[in-house]
Amino acid sequence: MANKVAVYRKEHFNAAHRLHNPSLSAEENDRLFGKCNLPNYHGHNYELIVKVIGEVDPKTGYVIDTKLLSTLVNEHIISKFDHRNLNLDVPEFKELNPTAENIAIVIFNILRPLLSEQFLLQIRLYETPRNFVEYPTI
Amino acid sequence: MANKVAVYRKEHFNAAHRLHNPSLSAEENDRLFGKCNLPNYHGHNYELIVKVIGEVDPKTGYVIDTKLLSTLVNEHIISKFDHRNLNLDVPEFKELNPTAENIAIVIFNILRPLLSEQFLLQIRLYETPRNFVEYPTI
Amino acid sequence: MANKVAVYRKEHFNAAHRLHNPSLSAEENDRLFGKCNLPNYHGHNYELIVKVIGEVDPKTGYVIDTKLLSTLVNEHIISKFDHRNLNLDVPEFKELNPTAENIAIVIFNILRPLLSEQFLLQIRLYETPRNFVEYPTI
Amino acid sequence: MANKVAVYRKEHFNAAHRLHNPSLSAEENDRLFGKCNLPNYHGHNYELIVKVIGEVDPKTGYVIDTKLLSTLVNEHIISKFDHRNLNLDVPEFKELNPTAENIAIVIFNILRPLLSEQFLLQIRLYETPRNFVEYPTI
Amino acid sequence: MANKVAVYRKEHFNAAHRLHNPSLSAEENDRLFGKCNLPNYHGHNYELIVKVIGEVDPKTGYVIDTKLLSTLVNEHIISKFDHRNLNLDVPEFKELNPTAENIAIVIFNILRPLLSEQFLLQIRLYETPRNFVEYPTI
Amino acid sequence: MANKVAVYRKEHFNAAHRLHNPSLSAEENDRLFGKCNLPNYHGHNYELIVKVIGEVDPKTGYVIDTKLLSTLVNEHIISKFDHRNLNLDVPEFKELNPTAENIAIVIFNILRPLLSEQFLLQIRLYETPRNFVEYPTI
Repeated sequence: MANKVAVYRKEHFNAAHRLHNPSLSAEENDRLFGKCNLPNYHGHNYELIVKVIGEVDPKTGYVIDTKLLSTLVNEHIISKFDHRNLNLDVPEFKELNPTAENIAIVIFNILRPLLSEQFLLQIRLYETPRNFVEYPTI
Repeated sequence: MANKVAVYRKEHFNAAHRLHNPSLSAEENDRLFGKCNLPNYHGHNYELIVKVIGEVDPKTGYVIDTKLLSTLVNEHIISKFDHRNLNLDVPEFKELNPTAENIAIVIFNILRPLLSEQFLLQIRLYETPRNFVEYPTI
Repeated sequence: MANKVAVYRKEHFNAAHRLHNPSLSAEENDRLFGKCNLPNYHGHNYELIVKVIGEVDPKTGYVIDTKLLSTLVNEHIISKFDHRNLNLDVPEFKELNPTAENIAIVIFNILRPLLSEQFLLQIRLYETPRNFVEYPTI
Repeated sequence: MANKVAVYRKEHFNAAHRLHNPSLSAEENDRLFGKCNLPNYHGHNYELIVKVIGEVDPKTGYVIDTKLLSTLVNEHIISKFDHRNLNLDVPEFKELNPTAENIAIVIFNILRPLLSEQFLLQIRLYETPRNFVEYPTI
Repeated sequence: MANKVAVYRKEHFNAAHRLHNPSLSAEENDRLFGKCNLPNYHGHNYELIVKVIGEVDPKTGYVIDTKLLSTLVNEHIISKFDHRNLNLDVPEFKELNPTAENIAIVIFNILRPLLSEQFLLQIRLYETPRNFVEYPTI
Repeated sequence: MANKVAVYRKEHFNAAHRLHNPSLSAEENDRLFGKCNLPNYHGHNYELIVKVIGEVDPKTGYVIDTKLLSTLVNEHIISKFDHRNLNLDVPEFKELNPTAENIAIVIFNILRPLLSEQFLLQIRLYETPRNFVEYPTI
């Protein structure tokens, strides 16, 4: 029986955002999000860790080639998010508040169909070294 | 159905401690804990990571506001532990040996009743960058 | 004779910016700054290290109390820059391109008059873990 | 009932390796592994995190003494791998391709019989800060 | 002409301390040092970086063998400071306030006579990742 | 008068090496370099920080565009060193012992003529997080 191993690949992107729910009033947004709601945006160096669990291929010794995984993440996530304004430039956040939680879910939903079903996928996203999230919780 | 996400918040405190079981002899304490048992204490920059798992609130995009989580941890843990001697100043360790394992359990037991029951809680505590613990193991 | 020691204090702020010289054409800005010039801004977790060189006060054993230094930096820099758009919200960058080099010089020029002349001051600013600057070069 | 806690200990070793499956042709090895297959080897500062889950001993407050855990890892892993060529010097990789996945499995298989059955064991291995693996996935 | 290179070696120790000037009143100590003056001590994971500047020996390619430098620092500093109370256990701080500035100067004064005069020596000491000092300033 | 700023760019490469002076006997090499002299090589994740000091160009706000600096370092250093055996694959080390000191000097000597004379250049090279060097010492 093959061994299951988790493989992790770390990437990063720099983006602007503000926390804002367009269906709420300005006062309610300010109350909920404080300085994260300031109108002219702020930004982060996001660190993204993609975790893939699968069986080790006896031919290669790989679960998945991390160079291929890195290429996949760069083509479908980094090229869309890096040096962008998440609220204005990324269609997924036109209506959706770009909290770390929601960004992680969006990244998962983009990558999930691109990976073989034999793999489990989990996203960890660092907004800062002190604030980070993980999805799904498995 | 709402999505479950894990949210992490990192805090830190600087404290003195010694490893010592007051119900054992001095010789037994020395045999078990070596230089960690030296009588005049040593200390650490503890790094504390609090993990909260819950559903994302569609109104805010948050599982829990990390600013509220940080305030909670600072009021109930950091203000009691930071710049203190764990053995002498923190009542929970009057009888309990302040190993990393026991400190993590004490922190969990303080924070657990302060969080809504809908959340899962896990504590990770770094005593040094090379020695750390996690509780519960879930 | 008193001993001179360098004291370092690290702070951080999260901000949006774009690289843009308003006196140049759009084409020239794009040629010079590429994706850093994109119109809707991106952002960073800036790490700021303030270095102060001075003599150790024999009464305190301090060159300068790092709590006072931290308060000074927070009042005059972090409160102005954190969760802001450097181009739009910080008057110093209305005409000045907010490159890491220029941000470091602006920070130095704000802090220098606030510190006693007996101290030397140097600013290190990390835009990302891989790109950082230092001013002055001493 | 005793509390279960996870204890982590971090160690490191510096080693040379190349990715190469001796049962495949040179062309196939080059196609699969690219520059990682170059004939004269390259190397890494491997960071190894050993995780042990068990009940806290009420006498010591330890799941396991991290000094003992460190000694065990140094005697059975670090002394064999550090400053070595994994392909040439470590018998386990004479036929087995030393990918991060396979190195983690080999380390687990060496340490597992050395620990009491009451403990769960998991290995995390960083090949670089951006590429790492975990085994088993539990 | 031989090339001058700076060689750095990083070591660490865990110690308890409190900031206290025994020649001042309790009130004055509290006013100057706040929670750092609390009577039962706190502690830190100190990170110590020893920098040695010298010419590269053409026979070895070394300025100084970092293993020898590490042994020297461990024998003369770490063995005296690690897992100790700086105020109570280290004679140099019986009268001297163990601020980061003073600890760095004490370490320099211990190591300086142990190194050949052909070498320049500089000490960097991290009390926390956000507070650190350097001596001499060169 | 223009302001001088230091700009830093961090890159990395993974390489195998052994410490060996081919003009000395096997016994002398073993005595001098110990396990670093083992015949089948070991390796490191080298972290390279290139520091360039110069005046800020008022048109761009840059001393030097870090993207250009990164390209220069990648073309002339990383492409030659990464995933290579320094002793066997890099001509500069055919006769020269690849200590951290000598690698830093070789990197400086390659990059120095590629940069304008108006810039000062300094190389910092991390062999491990605990052993690193800097050249020149300025």
